Amino acid sequence: MPITPRDQDYSQWYNDIVQNADLAENSSVRWCMVIKPYWFAMRENIQKALDSMFKNTGHVNAYFPLFIPKSFLSKEAEHVEHFAKECAIVTHYRLKLDDNKKLIVDPEAKLEEELIVRPTSETIIWDSYKRRVNSYRDLPILINQRANIVRWEMRTRIFLRTTEFLRQEWHTAHATYEEAEAETKKMHRVYNDFATNFMAISPVLGPKPEHDKFAGALTTYAVEPMMQDFKALQAGTSHNLGQNFGKVFDVKFTNDKNELDYVRWTSRWVSTRLIGWLIMSHSDDKWLVLPPAIAPIHIVIVPIFKTPEELDNIKKYLQPIIDKINSEKIKIKSEYFDDEIRIVYKIDDDDKKSMWRKFNEWELKWVPIRIAVWPRDMENWNIELYRRDSGEKESIKISDAINKITPLLNEIQDKLLNKNRKFREDNTYYVDSYEELKEKVQKWFVMAHWDGELESALKIQDETKATIRCIPFDEFIDDKYKWEGKCIISGKNSKQRVLFAKSY
Amino acid sequence: MPITPRDQDYSQWYNDIVQNADLAENSSVRWCMVIKPYWFAMRENIQKALDSMFKNTGHVNAYFPLFIPKSFLSKEAEHVEHFAKECAIVTHYRLKLDDNKKLIVDPEAKLEEELIVRPTSETIIWDSYKRRVNSYRDLPILINQRANIVRWEMRTRIFLRTTEFLRQEWHTAHATYEEAEAETKKMHRVYNDFATNFMAISPVLGPKPEHDKFAGALTTYAVEPMMQDFKALQAGTSHNLGQNFGKVFDVKFTNDKNELDYVRWTSRWVSTRLIGWLIMSHSDDKWLVLPPAIAPIHIVIVPIFKTPEELDNIKKYLQPIIDKINSEKIKIKSEYFDDEIRIVYKIDDDDKKSMWRKFNEWELKWVPIRIAVWPRDMENWNIELYRRDSGEKESIKISDAINKITPLLNEIQDKLLNKNRKFREDNTYYVDSYEELKEKVQKWFVMAHWDGELESALKIQDETKATIRCIPFDEFIDDKYKWEGKCIISGKNSKQRVLFAKSY
Repeated sequence: MPITPRDQDYSQWYNDIVQNADLAENSSVRWCMVIKPYWFAMRENIQKALDSMFKNTGHVNAYFPLFIPKSFLSKEAEHVEHFAKECAIVTHYRLKLDDNKKLIVDPEAKLEEELIVRPTSETIIWDSYKRRVNSYRDLPILINQRANIVRWEMRTRIFLRTTEFLRQEWHTAHATYEEAEAETKKMHRVYNDFATNFMAISPVLGPKPEHDKFAGALTTYAVEPMMQDFKALQAGTSHNLGQNFGKVFDVKFTNDKNELDYVRWTSRWVSTRLIGWLIMSHSDDKWLVLPPAIAPIHIVIVPIFKTPEELDNIKKYLQPIIDKINSEKIKIKSEYFDDEIRIVYKIDDDDKKSMWRKFNEWELKWVPIRIAVWPRDMENWNIELYRRDSGEKESIKISDAINKITPLLNEIQDKLLNKNRKFREDNTYYVDSYEELKEKVQKWFVMAHWDGELESALKIQDETKATIRCIPFDEFIDDKYKWEGKCIISGKNSKQRVLFAKSY
Repeated sequence: MPITPRDQDYSQWYNDIVQNADLAENSSVRWCMVIKPYWFAMRENIQKALDSMFKNTGHVNAYFPLFIPKSFLSKEAEHVEHFAKECAIVTHYRLKLDDNKKLIVDPEAKLEEELIVRPTSETIIWDSYKRRVNSYRDLPILINQRANIVRWEMRTRIFLRTTEFLRQEWHTAHATYEEAEAETKKMHRVYNDFATNFMAISPVLGPKPEHDKFAGALTTYAVEPMMQDFKALQAGTSHNLGQNFGKVFDVKFTNDKNELDYVRWTSRWVSTRLIGWLIMSHSDDKWLVLPPAIAPIHIVIVPIFKTPEELDNIKKYLQPIIDKINSEKIKIKSEYFDDEIRIVYKIDDDDKKSMWRKFNEWELKWVPIRIAVWPRDMENWNIELYRRDSGEKESIKISDAINKITPLLNEIQDKLLNKNRKFREDNTYYVDSYEELKEKVQKWFVMAHWDGELESALKIQDETKATIRCIPFDEFIDDKYKWEGKCIISGKNSKQRVLFAKSY
């Protein structure tokens, strides 16, 4: 299937990439997708990376019920407003066969209180925290949940905003503001570490402005990468949510001064959308592109054989390469990850498929390295090594290939990150007039001075459809532009530039 | 909380174990449980083990929708009969605030077709397989899904049979009966490998008799361990399901002779109940007992300190042990597992809890090894090493402890398996008269000759409440009793003994 170019129809391009690489498909259930094995394997790599990083920072996993009693959602008005209206509602608990042997909902099996399929889990989690927190000695609670989430979205978007999606959500409980804020900031850094070192994505980091924090949050820290259409896609916000849920669910504890206080809450999540983020960051008009740290398969080995004996011989011939692959790991620079990424290879010896079909399938799935062996190669101690990112193909000695493979995977990982960083930096403009902002922000990231007033932010938003994505940490501002200035709208003093962009 | 002895109230004993080790709690949603971090960590170890074993046998993971359209369930009569009647039914997709600001189900947001929260996933999976299978070249499909399942059980049982539970389900699709049967048998062996080498449980293996196969299955292979109340708990059946679903969902393919045929299906699953199986196999009247291959934490280190400096010194003092732990792995004898089990330690340096509270908490969670260090120990290069299974405590040189830890963990794992095997063997009786069977099967496993007739099986079942658990493979029959004989009911010829037992 040909891929629609990005600048012709960005959404269609995204769908084409997903379908060509066989990542997902629409199911027979409205806006629910089937996550196919290749996508799921990427998700597992992401999960493994995050899991190691979160465990290293003291977090544990747990699981809370799928269903939320309707009354739980009513407890918190903002919750209803933001999450809970468009949702799947369970009203009955039994089917029966009617007189015509047709399967119908049994009207006598109506629930006393309806159950909502979780659109988010705060209420059910805090209901449980209430039972386990009495004293500051029971805190902090640092829990992560991996779960399926259902929202009856009216604005669905295939493979990006679906009715059901998979998510990790962290809900931590703390005794003091300081501890909650430290957690919020640390996990924001962990996100950045993950984005940079695994996803090969270089985002801009910083707090959200006051008016754009998550509902009820004291602070919200954002991770804002640039997609290939130059738009921002918010990924992995980290929130310090104060005592709001502690009060709503009446979760009190005795602090170290023996006073009663409400528990503090921080929260963050990542979802199936991460894969969308990955695709939109690296893939091009021809195909899916994957960083090796996330790729499900690093090396596909295609033996060209006619008989089982030939296949056997090729496998024996390749054994030194296999042994080497099994003994090495992909290099990860992360500060928090302490697990290993094994090099995954697949010997595609399916005798029902032609060589060309195999080459094409692995091409579309963007396996970073392909090794092909013809019987004649063996006479010369050669193999054919194909490098997916550059398209370079060479016939080299097997003894040379052995030492080349792991460095090549590390090189491809670094190259993708550097490309992504450069793309963002090259497409970020530092402007000092509103006129210039209005022009540049139509397409690119813009760093400009802002006085911190809601009024100025809204004016820009109304007139350009761009928003303040975050107040970048100092390290994300080019040294040449690190000076105090005047707000481009009001002319008032401004301590630093903020990031304006259009976004998903 | 004191633990109710097993022979006083087995169910209450199970609940007490779960609560003392802080494994799970009831939630505010009817018969849905909160899976707490310690249980969840065991589940992660189980999942990691199975995942490696299944990937090594060519399987991949994918994810299918949570919701099943009602019409899908109607397609297959047996499906409705077995799974689909007691289930959670989504009928609406929106809440709204009524005139009194009360949150109600919006009557205008009624679904045209109701959605069932998956009680099992065959129908939605086969609906997807239909779209991807055309030729024998597209087969086999070897997919596993990890998912939450909901059944509105009328006979619930806390922590064992709950409304929502977590499950892995494998649904494979094949071109030929032989291939499907080979898969069914192989995965049955994988289950046994997992039970033996990870769970330290020694089950009896073999096919189910004709009359007790899974609905619609051509063959069903069972894994039947003995619980500590001498009952069998069926765990991990493997089914060759023929062309039933291929026909119901009209999944046809062109075979290698260019003829149209229906796809063959095999299936198996394991669920949250595995943890129940584990608890009921090893735990005793005092506490939870865990095999190290599944235990979330292998070593808890409790430094006894007054000041941060003392804690620092103890940590430095222990560094050689930590380094050693980090460099070693738990030994696993599995034929299919090729991953590693790291040794997990936790330094419990929480200064808000007393030493005694810490000792007690880790005791209840059955961490296999505890190391405690007092400042005075450091003067003599000693540590206190406590072995959880035997209760032995010794003060030994740190240099000796280093080489003792990993072998000790391996020893505990082996010991639990041997104990479980011996328990089953010691409590299995070989009988040759119906009178003796009736007496022995009230409590124990019984191996007796059976003529293979439903009539004889039903007579025993009616009169004793015991069933034929499986037709054991030869290796599970004691050599002394491996002879052909006469059915203890009918007196007809019988080729081999079968396993009779009461079960969960």
